[in-house]
Amino acid sequence: MTFAQRLRTAQRRNNSLLCIGLDSDLSLLPPSLLGYAEPIAEFNRRIIAATRDLVCAYKLNMAFYEATGERSWHTLQLTLGAVPADVLTIGDGKRGDIGNSSAYYAREMAEEYRFSACTVSPYMGEDSVAPFLQYRRMGVFVLAVTSNPGAHDFQYLRSGGRPVYEHVIARVQAWNTRKNCGLVVGATKPRELQRARVLAPTMPFLIPGIGAQGGDLESAVRYGCDGKGEMAVINASRSIIYASRGEDFADAARDAARTLRDRINEIRAVRFPR
Amino acid sequence: MTFAQRLRTAQRRNNSLLCIGLDSDLSLLPPSLLGYAEPIAEFNRRIIAATRDLVCAYKLNMAFYEATGERSWHTLQLTLGAVPADVLTIGDGKRGDIGNSSAYYAREMAEEYRFSACTVSPYMGEDSVAPFLQYRRMGVFVLAVTSNPGAHDFQYLRSGGRPVYEHVIARVQAWNTRKNCGLVVGATKPRELQRARVLAPTMPFLIPGIGAQGGDLESAVRYGCDGKGEMAVINASRSIIYASRGEDFADAARDAARTLRDRINEIRAVRFPR
Repeated sequence: MTFAQRLRTAQRRNNSLLCIGLDSDLSLLPPSLLGYAEPIAEFNRRIIAATRDLVCAYKLNMAFYEATGERSWHTLQLTLGAVPADVLTIGDGKRGDIGNSSAYYAREMAEEYRFSACTVSPYMGEDSVAPFLQYRRMGVFVLAVTSNPGAHDFQYLRSGGRPVYEHVIARVQAWNTRKNCGLVVGATKPRELQRARVLAPTMPFLIPGIGAQGGDLESAVRYGCDGKGEMAVINASRSIIYASRGEDFADAARDAARTLRDRINEIRAVRFPR
Repeated sequence: MTFAQRLRTAQRRNNSLLCIGLDSDLSLLPPSLLGYAEPIAEFNRRIIAATRDLVCAYKLNMAFYEATGERSWHTLQLTLGAVPADVLTIGDGKRGDIGNSSAYYAREMAEEYRFSACTVSPYMGEDSVAPFLQYRRMGVFVLAVTSNPGAHDFQYLRSGGRPVYEHVIARVQAWNTRKNCGLVVGATKPRELQRARVLAPTMPFLIPGIGAQGGDLESAVRYGCDGKGEMAVINASRSIIYASRGEDFADAARDAARTLRDRINEIRAVRFPR
């Protein structure tokens, strides 16, 4: 099964395009968890248990785990061990290097952590991404249009009548021979999202930026989905995992996740009627 | 003291532009080291002890350390602990993310590992780099022109009459208010290196790609240095640390490092006479 097929299967099983970003931060956890040997892993375990039937994926931003220093590897392994096999995991590391370095990063994502997918940076070009693509089962989301203000510095430079990010999209389309490529397109950029979907009609899109970053959900669903109303992976992090900062955090996360999943599905029902 | 000043001081102390890349790989170590609890750290410790008076810096590619999984943090800390205080350390992670994620990566480099400098990817723009630049003592080498074939995919796209990498250089010049910015320019690209030095006359350049990648040393020194014959950090990895694959690896590394340091200094003496 290709990565694209695995994603479609996961989205249909839970009838959900929602991805929860486990950007779990020690300083934001409820005090009762701080007595655990692995507080972040325990927090994640409870969030996952409360939301696993509502999502297609969990995204783990590597920066938050590396921030735990010495415990990083264990926290990641414990968290990943709590995710059901039929829900995808995305290792959000935005790595990009060459030669052996890139091969090591790819192996880390695919073998050490066994992520279903990862994110990579395109700046160093094809041979920096190729080692990731060799893992046929692993999805590789390449940064195209990011949700931050600095996106305009280089991604929007026009070359040959179109912005750099469109060149990225065109190249990723060409690299997608194993159907394991995807694109990262921020929800704060609806016009660019629409254009990306025209250029890559069936490719999985990882769409961060709704919720705390203010991206528009309606546009993210309308323009992010393929023709069947699928293949958009809509990520929300803080608005779900910190829906309550109290001891009821897991219940609050479930409520927030269900509300968002259902809202996405209402938009899909209108925009992509059966 | 700014990072630029620290680099100049380190280069003058050992009369060396040479940076040794500790791309240390478990599968390439002499068998006698495999009995150590931390074979890579022991290998690095011996390489450092044998070469510390011949270099201005050691570069640690994060991919090689993350590849050690659970032991990664310890291996890095033990290695960094073996570097003399007057030699710089460069954490080569090529990270790039936004908001808290970028802040966490920056903190990891500056506080967790206390690297003298690190590398970052420019694709996500100014706010992805800013958290690194806030650490005034830490140098931040931004990828400009990389040494690999894929560099041509996006770095060379022309926009407004000049390639994307020149836009990157111009932006990094603008970000350099604390004199802690640098650029990565591959030694396999002498023309681009020359052009980068015109655009950024005094900025530290990290120059990989000589040795195993075939970049030309003469051009790297001639075009990579500032007007005083300094500020080029010329990295060599495999050609030094694997100069011998036997038990004499540390002596062989010292010979290879001294030969390269001296060759660089011969070129400097001709191109930048006192």
